[in-house]
Amino acid sequence: MPPVDLIAALREPARDAPASGIVDIMNYGRSRGGVMGLWAGEGDLSTPGFIVEAATRALAAGETFYTWQRGIPELREALARYHSAQFGRRFSAEEFFVTGSGMQAIQIALAMTAKVGSEVIIPTPAWPNAAAAAGIAGARPIELPMRFGNEGWILDMNQLAAAVTDQTNVLVLVSPSNPTGWSATAGELRDILSLARRHGLWIVADETYSRFWYAEGSRAPSFYDVMAPDDRIVFVNTFSKNWAMTGWRMGWISAHPLLGQVVENLIQYSTSGVAQFMQRAGIVALEQGEEFVRQQVARARKSRDIACDILGRTGRCRFAVPQGAFYLFFSVDGENDTFALARRLVDEAQAGLAPGTAFGAGGENFLRLCFARDPGQIDEVCTRIAKVLMK
Amino acid sequence: MPPVDLIAALREPARDAPASGIVDIMNYGRSRGGVMGLWAGEGDLSTPGFIVEAATRALAAGETFYTWQRGIPELREALARYHSAQFGRRFSAEEFFVTGSGMQAIQIALAMTAKVGSEVIIPTPAWPNAAAAAGIAGARPIELPMRFGNEGWILDMNQLAAAVTDQTNVLVLVSPSNPTGWSATAGELRDILSLARRHGLWIVADETYSRFWYAEGSRAPSFYDVMAPDDRIVFVNTFSKNWAMTGWRMGWISAHPLLGQVVENLIQYSTSGVAQFMQRAGIVALEQGEEFVRQQVARARKSRDIACDILGRTGRCRFAVPQGAFYLFFSVDGENDTFALARRLVDEAQAGLAPGTAFGAGGENFLRLCFARDPGQIDEVCTRIAKVLMK
Repeated sequence: MPPVDLIAALREPARDAPASGIVDIMNYGRSRGGVMGLWAGEGDLSTPGFIVEAATRALAAGETFYTWQRGIPELREALARYHSAQFGRRFSAEEFFVTGSGMQAIQIALAMTAKVGSEVIIPTPAWPNAAAAAGIAGARPIELPMRFGNEGWILDMNQLAAAVTDQTNVLVLVSPSNPTGWSATAGELRDILSLARRHGLWIVADETYSRFWYAEGSRAPSFYDVMAPDDRIVFVNTFSKNWAMTGWRMGWISAHPLLGQVVENLIQYSTSGVAQFMQRAGIVALEQGEEFVRQQVARARKSRDIACDILGRTGRCRFAVPQGAFYLFFSVDGENDTFALARRLVDEAQAGLAPGTAFGAGGENFLRLCFARDPGQIDEVCTRIAKVLMK
Repeated sequence: MPPVDLIAALREPARDAPASGIVDIMNYGRSRGGVMGLWAGEGDLSTPGFIVEAATRALAAGETFYTWQRGIPELREALARYHSAQFGRRFSAEEFFVTGSGMQAIQIALAMTAKVGSEVIIPTPAWPNAAAAAGIAGARPIELPMRFGNEGWILDMNQLAAAVTDQTNVLVLVSPSNPTGWSATAGELRDILSLARRHGLWIVADETYSRFWYAEGSRAPSFYDVMAPDDRIVFVNTFSKNWAMTGWRMGWISAHPLLGQVVENLIQYSTSGVAQFMQRAGIVALEQGEEFVRQQVARARKSRDIACDILGRTGRCRFAVPQGAFYLFFSVDGENDTFALARRLVDEAQAGLAPGTAFGAGGENFLRLCFARDPGQIDEVCTRIAKVLMK
């Protein structure tokens, strides 16, 4: 049997899952060296010491045994209190489920909701992983390109309504958006919810970037602001961004308590829970991490303004100033091959950006720059990028 | 909309995934208190200090960022060296992929191989999670009951051959077996492989308990002993048992390097890798953990002998002395409702055993007792159980 048979014999959705379009450029950049990597969705700060120490203490105390599949009760209660503070109403620990990353929260949310052969609508440009996870689950991701113009990115509600078919089962909404920074208003969330109600759709609400919010208030508008308790919404979130814990792989699902046993089963049969010593760190992040979140967001806002200023002054870059998240998503006049441009920026500006081709329909001509970094560094690297673009 | 609609609207394989039959009795036992829990698949030792310290050091060094989806190169190389030592031939790091638990290794192995609607044959009694994961992936788990008699547990090769249909796609083999302790001989592995080759089946080889081996040699027979490089075998394994790391959620897949990109994609779109600081602990476990493995296995062997002796002397217990793994799987003459019996043992013997109903066809009349514990404790608890059984 020739080895290629091994590939041919695989389950199709697994075999056909796309490689990450971000990893390609990262591999290219790593081979060069000396590059400031702004391609990934993480900042430059390691996890704060007070959070790390909670894990270290739990490890030293021997918390290395199996634990609750849904998450330890103390962390689920801390999540409820955190949400109560964010949304000004009471939440119950029974609504929260700890997952092995925000990505796993998405995978489980889709495994719960997206029927085999059904369609999952995802407004794009979007972080590609939800679409890929839908495909692996046997559903069909349907990209709905948002419109970019003078008013920034726009999710056209008529186009969204027109994209719904008999086969549509789920709508994935990432707001604030990775990569565009677009954020749905409360009114838009209401419209989306009403469309979902009309068609009996599930909404997977990815509110990962809710705290990285540069307009009024301390967070972006949320489906929690507009929903009824029985709406078909599964929320996915992560410790990664707010508390600089990308490498930990810890996130959460929030959903109606009635769904608890199903979520628990999906956790049981995928990773069987999250290390208890990590969960201890999660509690400390939620309970003592607000000052760190504030500092991170203030720093990201400064870096955002610097990046927008420097790239804006080239006269060649087009973007909407992001209202949320920590990415600048910009196109460059006259540059259509963004993978080639990303390689050029690696080589000539020592700047690692992600090509827009990684983010689906509508993003092809853009580049994503993560500005969750020291403002001084963002100043330097954007200046180098500007120089290359103005050559 | 009444809330029950939320359940009705779920994807069927998720909605219909069974709750773990082990968790039921654990919840019952927890509500009683004072019970020695031998229901779960873990020992009583927390992770050794020298392993914990590797994670602590990496955390303190700020290793809290995203890392390689397949696992850090140093851990993959350590896995290759560990396998080389175990199997007496060269392995390459390219064959190894770090996963967020052995359970996730199984989930990914099935997501790669088990086509939607296809049949996955699983000899039973078996730990139920592989069957559940196959169901969630949209395949149909087919239980193949093994035979229990005077010669212990027997996997009837004719029955196995007869169970293969046009729809069969995958065969899951757990050897040494959880819960029976049965282990395939090299000859049986050869026969199974030859059947799989004839029908183009994938084998998911769960060798989690390979080191808990009480016959000759330092490990159980393995498909590695009999396979060719291009055979359709995906190995799943875990750090949980050998190094007392159940709570960490870290395992690995080994497979043909050609499958690397597919495995990487499935990791990317499920949990996106394992915390780097945990992987550092994995390296130390592999490289400095042999003495700990030897001590654990010697201790488990003592405890096994004590349990077999005490329960054997009741005259009511029937079991095969387990050759591998760390469970005693026994039936009690005249007791057919093993969940009721398990509850009685919680109440009257303060002993937490898992009812055989949790392990599929052929195991219904049995109880599973985990003997990975201090021999003195196993002596005490088995004496209490024997007393109840001889009342």
